[in-house]
Amino acid sequence: MKRIVLLRHGESTWNKENRFTGWTDVDLSEKGIEEALKAGEVLKKENFVFNKAYTSYLKRAVKTLNCVLDKLDQDWIPVEKSWRLNEKHYGSLQGLNKSETAEKYGEEQVLIWRRSYDIAPAPLAEDDPRNPRFDIRYKEVPDRELPRTESLKQTIERIMPYWEKVIFPNLKTADDLLVVAHGNSLRGIIKHLKNISDDEIVKLNLPTAVPYVFEFDDNYNLVKDYFLGDADEIKKKMNAVANQGKK
Amino acid sequence: MKRIVLLRHGESTWNKENRFTGWTDVDLSEKGIEEALKAGEVLKKENFVFNKAYTSYLKRAVKTLNCVLDKLDQDWIPVEKSWRLNEKHYGSLQGLNKSETAEKYGEEQVLIWRRSYDIAPAPLAEDDPRNPRFDIRYKEVPDRELPRTESLKQTIERIMPYWEKVIFPNLKTADDLLVVAHGNSLRGIIKHLKNISDDEIVKLNLPTAVPYVFEFDDNYNLVKDYFLGDADEIKKKMNAVANQGKK
Repeated sequence: MKRIVLLRHGESTWNKENRFTGWTDVDLSEKGIEEALKAGEVLKKENFVFNKAYTSYLKRAVKTLNCVLDKLDQDWIPVEKSWRLNEKHYGSLQGLNKSETAEKYGEEQVLIWRRSYDIAPAPLAEDDPRNPRFDIRYKEVPDRELPRTESLKQTIERIMPYWEKVIFPNLKTADDLLVVAHGNSLRGIIKHLKNISDDEIVKLNLPTAVPYVFEFDDNYNLVKDYFLGDADEIKKKMNAVANQGKK
Repeated sequence: MKRIVLLRHGESTWNKENRFTGWTDVDLSEKGIEEALKAGEVLKKENFVFNKAYTSYLKRAVKTLNCVLDKLDQDWIPVEKSWRLNEKHYGSLQGLNKSETAEKYGEEQVLIWRRSYDIAPAPLAEDDPRNPRFDIRYKEVPDRELPRTESLKQTIERIMPYWEKVIFPNLKTADDLLVVAHGNSLRGIIKHLKNISDDEIVKLNLPTAVPYVFEFDDNYNLVKDYFLGDADEIKKKMNAVANQGKK
């Protein structure tokens, strides 16, 4: 049996402030660190020994991974970071409060920006200091691939090559892989693995820092998938995420 | 100008208990975490932006690196871990208290084990649970390369191929590299870079968590090397390390 565990990062300081984050490199909150450590404990209880871990270029994911590996006593395993696992780019919404944006543009419009499959928020201007072309960490990424905004569709399109060429082929030699990323980048992977429709994937509210296990047979076909942890708590977390866009 | 920064990990829980650690995977102490964060601050003040970082398979080094990168706001940079950067293997001394060992075998013998260039402590037995052949993290290392004990000479011999084939050639494309490792593994690199004799290198007491900068010219020749930080504090730290083997 081969397994890939997907993990959404713990609460960030901007989750807490209810702001659109996207590619903004905000830190984990205290609660986020606790959530990450708890995810590590849950995985330890199930005796996971990972061969390799993948994460994004954003510190809320990197630090969630660091907490998990430390709890597992697996600080030593190889980690590969990629900009392709970054959160959906929220364009000019990045930094704005979700409730205030809802008051200004209406809940419906915010829900479209947050949850439509192929509509992207207005892009960042070329001279906007938030534009990723000014960020040294993306200097190796060809400019035409570097987003100024993204729909979920576009987010998934930039993740899939990395999933198909880098992460998934590793199952040939590895038994257990860990991917620590973001609500929308993980939606892309889950949509692909479970063959979920465009309409349905936008309704999936992934809980923060709850290990989501995918098991594969010897032919790399998905056999089953399940969350690890207390069912009630997971449901509560999913509802909390779903309610963020309300006034 | 190209630079490589060497950094010895912060104080570990066994540094504090004054025990021979070697390949035992002990954690950082609270003080060790503070030291690591301070090293990050010092590097930040000097505006270091690293292209890549290297560390060992031991959590006191990995976690020191994580602290430094987080302080620098460079959690995203690529990190490569290698068993070749591990501390000197202390054989059957691993786990013993340094002062008690000095009382039992004499200060002189302990100083030989700690500071001779080519005398190794007694090796671990093949069935000793501390033997690295039982540790899953080394399962990809050919058994004949996996030490049961090491002299400083042997430690250096296993580090140098990694330095020469992996780390140093990176200067061709990178401007600033960071290596977070251990007292003895860093001695090997420093001996090589500064062409220090066997007799002299054993006297070098590297302070914990003080960035040691090596600058190279365009032909990759060493131009100068210096510690970053307060001179008095660095001297105090070096003396503390030198006095560990006393009763």
